[in-house]
Parts: sequence; structure tokens; C-alpha cells
Amino acid sequence: MPETAPVILQMDFPFSGPWGEEMAAQLEGLARDIAAEPGLIWKVWTENAEAGRAGGVYAFETEEQAHAYLTKHTNRLAEFGITGIEAKVFRANTALSAITHMPFTASPGA
Amino acid sequence: MPETAPVILQMDFPFSGPWGEEMAAQLEGLARDIAAEPGLIWKVWTENAEAGRAGGVYAFETEEQAHAYLTKHTNRLAEFGITGIEAKVFRANTALSAITHMPFTASPGA
Repeated sequence: MPETAPVILQMDFPFSGPWGEEMAAQLEGLARDIAAEPGLIWKVWTENAEAGRAGGVYAFETEEQAHAYLTKHTNRLAEFGITGIEAKVFRANTALSAITHMPFTASPGA
Repeated sequence: MPETAPVILQMDFPFSGPWGEEMAAQLEGLARDIAAEPGLIWKVWTENAEAGRAGGVYAFETEEQAHAYLTKHTNRLAEFGITGIEAKVFRANTALSAITHMPFTASPGA
């Protein structure tokens, strides 16, 4: 665990699918690339087919790494024709999060 | 891990502190209550002192439990005089999240 509290980035954007398993099959390569992102502790991939939005929640070791990734991913999404990104950055409260079952350690990945 | 994908709830609201360790000391009791919430897998507590906002990212086993908690927590925050809540609900993509180091298992808690 990093000495300072992890930084939480939440972002989402308009998305027209695919969803679920089909989304996973299509974006597996991107996921493996993101898994190696500097400072990434974890990313939860999020999707809402009814709202037509997808995105993710990320934990990074530092605020600089979170912002660098946000810029990089925003540019990558623009190449896919995706705009209208909504993003928020927070610091995690590790003491309270530990009580509510959130371990800030990365798994080995799949 | 539940058979269906976990539901991710992200919410935040105007907050004037306290922050960090002081926040953790003040809200430890609330955290222990939330840790026992039906269907909660984990909650990450989020804070942004510069933006004057705090909240959390939650994983629940079902959409019904996520929405029930959102209603309950919105009412609880209103009792504290807190309004202006922004909330989003998504389904997690577990296959992609596993690649990016996100284990959907609860820790024993602190």
C-alpha cells in the first residue's frame, strides 16, 4: 500500500455497446494495456446499457498519475469518436474504507 | 463472488469537512454501520477538500440493494443538512475488471 492515500478517479461517457461479455471480448487488449498503466492499483469497468454510458472507477497511487491517465484516456476515447466525458477525482479515506471492506492492494490480475 | 456482476454506485455531495484522519475518527461509527449494509461488497470513502465534496464508491451484490442504500443514505444525509447529491449506478464488467486488478471479494474489514 502506498504511504499516501490512493487517488480515486471516476469517469464515464456516452457508449453504444457492446455490453457485458461481448464488451469484455472486444476490449480485452485495452484492459491488458490499462493494467500496466503507471501507478494503477485497480480499475473497475462500469457499464449502464439503459443509460447508454460506460466508464470506470480507478485507484491510482498518486494524483499526478491519475491526471496523466485521465488526459491519456480522454485523447484515446476522442480517437474512438467518444466525447462528453464526465470525470471526478477524489482522495480515498483509507481508514474508513478499511472498515467497509475495501482492500487497497492489487490482485495479480487475470 | 455473486453470480451476477456487482452493481457500482458512485455518489458525492457538498461537504465542509473534517477531512482525512479527523474525518475517519468522526465517522468511524457510521462506517461500521455501513459495513453491515445488506449486499455491500465494499465501499471506498472519497474526499476532495479543494472541491468541497465527499462521498463514496460502492459495490453491491444487486441493483435493488444499491438503490435501497442510495435512498437510505440520501435520507440520512438530509438529516445532516446535506443535499445536492450526485449519484450514478452502473454494472461492473467483471471480466475486464479482473484483468485490471480488481478483486470483487470483501476483506474481513478492520
